Amino acid sequence: MTPSQALPAVLDRIDADLDNALARLFDFLRIASISTDPAYASHCRAAAEFVAKDLDGLGFETSVRATAGHPVVVGKAAGGNGPRVLFYGHYDVQPVDPLDLWETPPFEPRIAALADGRRVIVGRGACDDKGQLMTFVEACRAFKTVTGTLPLPVTMMIEGEEECGSNHLFAFVQAHAAELRGDLALVCDTSMWDPNTPMVTTSLRGLLYEEVRLSCADRDLHSGLFGGAAQNPIRVLSKILGALHDENGRVTIPGFYEGVRELPADIRADLASLNLSAEEFLGPVGLQAPAGEAGRMVIEQIATRPTAEINGIVGGYTGEGAKTVIPGTAMAKVSFRLVGAQDPAGIRAAFHAFVRERLPIDCKVEFQNFTLAPAVELPFDSPVLAETRAALAEEWGRKAIAVGEGGSIPIVADFKRVLGMDTIMVGFALDDDRVHSPNEKFDLTSFHKGARSWARILAAMAA
Amino acid sequence: MTPSQALPAVLDRIDADLDNALARLFDFLRIASISTDPAYASHCRAAAEFVAKDLDGLGFETSVRATAGHPVVVGKAAGGNGPRVLFYGHYDVQPVDPLDLWETPPFEPRIAALADGRRVIVGRGACDDKGQLMTFVEACRAFKTVTGTLPLPVTMMIEGEEECGSNHLFAFVQAHAAELRGDLALVCDTSMWDPNTPMVTTSLRGLLYEEVRLSCADRDLHSGLFGGAAQNPIRVLSKILGALHDENGRVTIPGFYEGVRELPADIRADLASLNLSAEEFLGPVGLQAPAGEAGRMVIEQIATRPTAEINGIVGGYTGEGAKTVIPGTAMAKVSFRLVGAQDPAGIRAAFHAFVRERLPIDCKVEFQNFTLAPAVELPFDSPVLAETRAALAEEWGRKAIAVGEGGSIPIVADFKRVLGMDTIMVGFALDDDRVHSPNEKFDLTSFHKGARSWARILAAMAA
Repeated sequence: MTPSQALPAVLDRIDADLDNALARLFDFLRIASISTDPAYASHCRAAAEFVAKDLDGLGFETSVRATAGHPVVVGKAAGGNGPRVLFYGHYDVQPVDPLDLWETPPFEPRIAALADGRRVIVGRGACDDKGQLMTFVEACRAFKTVTGTLPLPVTMMIEGEEECGSNHLFAFVQAHAAELRGDLALVCDTSMWDPNTPMVTTSLRGLLYEEVRLSCADRDLHSGLFGGAAQNPIRVLSKILGALHDENGRVTIPGFYEGVRELPADIRADLASLNLSAEEFLGPVGLQAPAGEAGRMVIEQIATRPTAEINGIVGGYTGEGAKTVIPGTAMAKVSFRLVGAQDPAGIRAAFHAFVRERLPIDCKVEFQNFTLAPAVELPFDSPVLAETRAALAEEWGRKAIAVGEGGSIPIVADFKRVLGMDTIMVGFALDDDRVHSPNEKFDLTSFHKGARSWARILAAMAA
Repeated sequence: MTPSQALPAVLDRIDADLDNALARLFDFLRIASISTDPAYASHCRAAAEFVAKDLDGLGFETSVRATAGHPVVVGKAAGGNGPRVLFYGHYDVQPVDPLDLWETPPFEPRIAALADGRRVIVGRGACDDKGQLMTFVEACRAFKTVTGTLPLPVTMMIEGEEECGSNHLFAFVQAHAAELRGDLALVCDTSMWDPNTPMVTTSLRGLLYEEVRLSCADRDLHSGLFGGAAQNPIRVLSKILGALHDENGRVTIPGFYEGVRELPADIRADLASLNLSAEEFLGPVGLQAPAGEAGRMVIEQIATRPTAEINGIVGGYTGEGAKTVIPGTAMAKVSFRLVGAQDPAGIRAAFHAFVRERLPIDCKVEFQNFTLAPAVELPFDSPVLAETRAALAEEWGRKAIAVGEGGSIPIVADFKRVLGMDTIMVGFALDDDRVHSPNEKFDLTSFHKGARSWARILAAMAA
């Protein structure tokens, strides 16, 4: 029996086993695995061991690996013919403060009903990432129960430091590259487009983050005495930063758009059909008009187009009242979200040249780099993307959106760079899940149909 | 005997009385009249009483007037025919910290010799302003001794809060306008051009100081999620501030240069003859090239031309490292030094319009004004200016420079606005006097020839 042939029984099994799956998730949610607070280190270890034990029972060869921080759980299982997938998730959760805003204790999970009738799982980690990662585990469990094996070879890597920076994961992946390497990575830590529309996240923007420090006079000067003759670094900095965008919102650094690709017509049409309005996206934060490149949809501006942003600026006197100073220095933090094949190092060099060309005499510049990460992209013509979208569409009865994510997830870039693997990101979170906030929840539908979605995806990927 | 006929004897008297004049100044310098520190309030009162007693002995009808802060000494004396002059000075001094950098205690004045042979008076207030104001008092004393009266009617107003903002002086001048009003104000609190070249300060730049606060989103946003679509107030602010100057260093606000006058040819020639080089002026602070309007001399840029400066800017993340934020607000402090007949209120309105015209949708602005003061100018064709320059030239054997001062002295603007009086500013400070710093000094030559200069000026002004 092929995985596809087994699929109807596997889906039935997931439906029949839902109460047990919830009981398992609740046991997992009761572990206060707050990674950023050293007081909860033993809880983190307990969560790792919970995951390891569960995977063990599914036939994974499992171990809890020590790092300089919280341990990483690695499990490896054989399966049917098909690509070996590396599934990544995390067992750690965010802190719970402010505790008094929780309606019930954060580590006492419960089922609640929302006003609109939706049933939800409430508790810290219900969504991020315990609930999400268990959708994948439950899909594996159902296959194992029905067919006695997994539909394809699976490696699990479940870390415990995602909520505090994944500080030891990059080194871990490097050190265990041979063991972890497979054909494709899977991540379940992202969102649906809306409660009815599934979504595959196909790209993550890269990030180039620079600090620019200008120096003119070797001390602060009095603007009465020196004003007019002395170069003012804030003036120079403003002029440079003010030249970063043209009147159409395009970045003016020469060569900046090299490697930026246009979306395929079908993907663009899919995105257009979402009708994400500026009002809908920007209204909740008090804005109304998209500020990015003219002629681009809002969803392009935030997901698939590169940007230049000034994240911070400071110079001179910034306290109350007036001080007539011409400062000696001024500083800005400037970052670039990158897409497609944009080259972070090349853009860094072009940005430096852009600044230096605009420096008058008497103004020196120092740069400091904090991040230099290229974009990660799953090609739109990738067969696994087509399979995943088709599987999701079958489960949800609606076309699955393929769209980029505006932010960066460093580990996904590492999968590409270190392990040479593309990543499929599928998740079932919703905008109202209050991830990182009090009363975090995960829709029961997300949990249940999430597991069914993974079962369909795995079956589709299996040979 | 006219004042002019008496002048040779008066100058001889100043020479003969120098040791006594120094003894009087030293008594004055021994009073620790630090106005900004409440612990020294009684010393300030003692300094006021010292001045009052001295003026009393010269025939002034003198009183020590209470204010909400330190008292003001007012003295009024008749004299020969001529304009009534209002002499302004201050008996208070700057704090003395860091005390350990003083070679001798700050309130134990002494005569010292510099390496180049110059003899100097060392002590807090030796120059600013006790030494300077006593040059005028000693000139009055010599006239009184030689002729029995002053060469012209004199009103003295010696305050005690100049070093802490003159907070109560404006109200005092308003309240006593009728009593204080005369034909001309005299101030001895400025510098010579160099140790050999006397100087009359004929104008002070005005000051318009604005805080500009831009707001976009109603909260800080994550640049991964919102970057591209959300308006960034730092970007808007940079673009606006970067547009304040054109490529020739001229301010681009429409109408900004209305009321700015060109210097008369002779005054311009005088200034050119000083050969103030960029290297000489800017070298000591680590700069080399004038940053003001192209084609203007350095001395014009700092003294007689208007400016726009960004005194401070802040927005977003300014700490160590990287934070990918799009801030909700950004703020800058922008000030304009004004000259001639430039209208501060009109320029304020034009600046506001300049900013508002450049605001995109989703960006709001709030302005806050801190200073709104026009420039003060003594007309270059004023007869008293000609008399003063001639008197100084006779004393110093060199043409007296007439030049504007780049900064503002608010009380001089008040003399014009409230009392309708022009002000002649003559002073004998030198660049190396370490005013406000440890080991403040005043050249003995400045003190001695300063008194002689005032005697000549008063004689010249007397009918």
